[in-house]
Amino acid sequence: MLLRLGYDMQFDIPEPVACVAQLRVHSSRAPGLRAPDHVKVEPEIAVEEYADSFGNHCTRFLAPAGTLRLKNDFLFEDPGLADPVQAQAVAHPIAELPHEVLRFLLPSRYCEVDSLTPAAFDLFGNTTPGWGRVQAICNWVYAKVMFGYSFARPTKTALDVFAERQGVCRDFQHLAITFCRALGIPARYVAGYLGDIGVSASDTPMDFSAWFEVYLENRWWAFDARHNLPRIGRVLMATGRDAADVAFFTSFGAANLKSFLVISEELQDGLGPKP
Amino acid sequence: MLLRLGYDMQFDIPEPVACVAQLRVHSSRAPGLRAPDHVKVEPEIAVEEYADSFGNHCTRFLAPAGTLRLKNDFLFEDPGLADPVQAQAVAHPIAELPHEVLRFLLPSRYCEVDSLTPAAFDLFGNTTPGWGRVQAICNWVYAKVMFGYSFARPTKTALDVFAERQGVCRDFQHLAITFCRALGIPARYVAGYLGDIGVSASDTPMDFSAWFEVYLENRWWAFDARHNLPRIGRVLMATGRDAADVAFFTSFGAANLKSFLVISEELQDGLGPKP
Amino acid sequence: MLLRLGYDMQFDIPEPVACVAQLRVHSSRAPGLRAPDHVKVEPEIAVEEYADSFGNHCTRFLAPAGTLRLKNDFLFEDPGLADPVQAQAVAHPIAELPHEVLRFLLPSRYCEVDSLTPAAFDLFGNTTPGWGRVQAICNWVYAKVMFGYSFARPTKTALDVFAERQGVCRDFQHLAITFCRALGIPARYVAGYLGDIGVSASDTPMDFSAWFEVYLENRWWAFDARHNLPRIGRVLMATGRDAADVAFFTSFGAANLKSFLVISEELQDGLGPKP
Amino acid sequence: MLLRLGYDMQFDIPEPVACVAQLRVHSSRAPGLRAPDHVKVEPEIAVEEYADSFGNHCTRFLAPAGTLRLKNDFLFEDPGLADPVQAQAVAHPIAELPHEVLRFLLPSRYCEVDSLTPAAFDLFGNTTPGWGRVQAICNWVYAKVMFGYSFARPTKTALDVFAERQGVCRDFQHLAITFCRALGIPARYVAGYLGDIGVSASDTPMDFSAWFEVYLENRWWAFDARHNLPRIGRVLMATGRDAADVAFFTSFGAANLKSFLVISEELQDGLGPKP
Repeated sequence: MLLRLGYDMQFDIPEPVACVAQLRVHSSRAPGLRAPDHVKVEPEIAVEEYADSFGNHCTRFLAPAGTLRLKNDFLFEDPGLADPVQAQAVAHPIAELPHEVLRFLLPSRYCEVDSLTPAAFDLFGNTTPGWGRVQAICNWVYAKVMFGYSFARPTKTALDVFAERQGVCRDFQHLAITFCRALGIPARYVAGYLGDIGVSASDTPMDFSAWFEVYLENRWWAFDARHNLPRIGRVLMATGRDAADVAFFTSFGAANLKSFLVISEELQDGLGPKP
Repeated sequence: MLLRLGYDMQFDIPEPVACVAQLRVHSSRAPGLRAPDHVKVEPEIAVEEYADSFGNHCTRFLAPAGTLRLKNDFLFEDPGLADPVQAQAVAHPIAELPHEVLRFLLPSRYCEVDSLTPAAFDLFGNTTPGWGRVQAICNWVYAKVMFGYSFARPTKTALDVFAERQGVCRDFQHLAITFCRALGIPARYVAGYLGDIGVSASDTPMDFSAWFEVYLENRWWAFDARHNLPRIGRVLMATGRDAADVAFFTSFGAANLKSFLVISEELQDGLGPKP
Repeated sequence: MLLRLGYDMQFDIPEPVACVAQLRVHSSRAPGLRAPDHVKVEPEIAVEEYADSFGNHCTRFLAPAGTLRLKNDFLFEDPGLADPVQAQAVAHPIAELPHEVLRFLLPSRYCEVDSLTPAAFDLFGNTTPGWGRVQAICNWVYAKVMFGYSFARPTKTALDVFAERQGVCRDFQHLAITFCRALGIPARYVAGYLGDIGVSASDTPMDFSAWFEVYLENRWWAFDARHNLPRIGRVLMATGRDAADVAFFTSFGAANLKSFLVISEELQDGLGPKP
Repeated sequence: MLLRLGYDMQFDIPEPVACVAQLRVHSSRAPGLRAPDHVKVEPEIAVEEYADSFGNHCTRFLAPAGTLRLKNDFLFEDPGLADPVQAQAVAHPIAELPHEVLRFLLPSRYCEVDSLTPAAFDLFGNTTPGWGRVQAICNWVYAKVMFGYSFARPTKTALDVFAERQGVCRDFQHLAITFCRALGIPARYVAGYLGDIGVSASDTPMDFSAWFEVYLENRWWAFDARHNLPRIGRVLMATGRDAADVAFFTSFGAANLKSFLVISEELQDGLGPKP
């Protein structure tokens, strides 16, 4: 499966401002790239690249006043397989989890594990630890939370979503992540591209996608409480505890988004879009 | 200054539970140790040591059912200097901060930087970036928040403290950290020993202490919004975004604290406690 | 059933402060009184009596600095019947409710009906409107919320209880009230005496009691999400939207409770306490 | 000053639903009416009128499925005076307030007086009780809170506004009301018409207006933390503890607003609009 991926976004920068972009494909998916996918910045300014504590590629620069444009357009080879489903995958006893995975059990900005633990045990305590428990959590969140763009607010947390039962994509994942952690299953937030845009009636064609991953049987597995069905061509860009760690663009001061385009389409052999 | 440091705590463990202790002196303070300060665990069980993503020493084990005891008692050489005060220390422009420091500008579980940014600018926007701004923040938090053990609750956040104006030690630090980050100054939560216990009327002799650090002029500096005066003999144990990352003891299941003792006293040459 | 009811409480008043007590038996229960139950105030000061907008007897006075004592000790004739159970009682269509009952459908300080409506419909939307629905709500709250005095905090709301699953008596009632209102059943908070203290293992002998009432089939009915079983000898003192409207003592300034005793015991014919 | 007042609003009603409208001029302003201002309801259905516990005219009916239209268009004589300013007006000691005013000191759904009392004392404790204190509160709220329609959310409370510093008209009033009550000044929320629409650059011409009133020197006085300047021709419709008590339209089930028009204009003698 050959994907054309990319983005083109413009910001109005009133005065020079420090910025960090998490717009590159994650190192774990680097083999699918035909060439490095460095962010193209206009105007041409000095950028620095670094990896944050989650291993995400970060691109950092001081944006001058005026128009800032970030873009890229590249090809990506994906195996084209649906999210793997392994209904027998078991949860590790916490004592056997790798050290570096433990932090994905803790509470974080938008995932109040400490507050929601009693509710998590009440709702899912009787499910079998492992894949079935995570699926039960996704089923619940998918069924109980109503999707709507008007429900978005930047400070909305899992606790808010649990009470109000309304939210956007990231809210669904935050609530599911919180329940997983409360029940001892490491869970992390993921942002990336979705290769099969259009499969679900609720897809937003021109946006990045958010999902989450849980750690079962020695690896991370993708789940998506918002769509709650396996998808094809998830290309991970950044991961972290929650949306506070994962943002395609962060500015430490004013930066007004003027236009925003995400490219994600499957190409045919001849490199034209699939009909 | 020679300090005798240590702890002795017992838990009642109803059934086997995975635990992580952050009870060792931080690697940055290791030179003051005369011998490694490995946690003594009773009963004698296998423990694993690792460093978390903040470089904290973590001691990990599966506690069996019954009584769990964690203890240590060791000597520590400290320069015996008060917290340095450098009133001219300037804040780095964000664009010039080291990569690894940037995460201490983000919101975290108990520090809702996103929500409190307008209030931070309103209250402290006119102060000079750097030491004076941090001191102004500490002065405000110290003056406005009332201390009381009855105000403690495990899920209390900076936003709660800001509104309710009541809290315990960690709450003071969380609010000050949040304001610092909102104004572009990296700030992190710290737990450790205080060598000059008894100096402040509000000291709690037999407990670990919490303070915070800010990054100015190429290094971290200790501040303490709870006591708001320089102290002597701070020995750092663990640091992180907030109290969610820093806990002397975490159990992933029930563990009931039965007794708790912290040792922190200055010794004379002859190794007896100072009169 | 002859009850001996009363209270004896003392406050330390640092400086003169306006106070309101809701300590008299509600007018709807006045027939059970052998004599008026005016609050006895020490020192002897001028008091004013009025009825608030919920028809509660309020006793109002300006307490001088020093010790304030409020007390009473009186006999009350109660039919001695258990809370009526009428499992067939139906809910009125909202359009047919009396005007004065409508306000008990609205959100109030500790009952965020607006926020919890989706959860209420999700949990109880399939139950039959009327008695069964209220009982289902009480069953749920009783089963899911853990009781504990350490969980009390004065600003705790139904939303907090729903998320944290922990609380004291008033918290149980607030959550149940909120669910009832969200589903179109008028519900109000009640404070009063419980005549059969000691029946439930969880009774707090020396305290007033809180329960709630719902409006079904042309009258109010008592429910109690905390004990969730019919009780005998509920003597209503005050009612309102939630605990913000109902407080045995309110001072508009400092008043420190020094001692507090509630009398509630069943007497035998010879007027001695029942063995 | 002769005002033309009215409204015309349409709802799509999916299935029969009980409704309450608070759309009539308040009884305290009835003398300005030339004829009763009963709500005109289409289709023609039976309506009931009642006064709620705050003395507001309420119009109640069961809306059938289909389109519901509520409208009116009437003349109103107003003295044409600006909001009175009486800078010497003193606050009553609480012990001397009328009974019926006391409830406007208590916490309510959107006004968490209990939580915000420490902040109120910190910010305004040194101001002189009375007019100057209320004005200081309005100045603060007006200066510190940013107005923006995108900041509206139905469950936003004074506590949220205090922390986030963002809101719409009702949010400004809720925060100011909360501070007043915390400092012992009775304050209530008001909805009505504004006769001099267009005076402030921030006026929303085609909407009802919200302000608040405080009780000083034996009467209620209008204040407006959103505009923070005296206005002409405030015509009160409904009042209550906060927006939970005051809503021009409440439906106990789905009712989708399709169009909404408010008429509020000053007429010349010849009854044409003033140029």
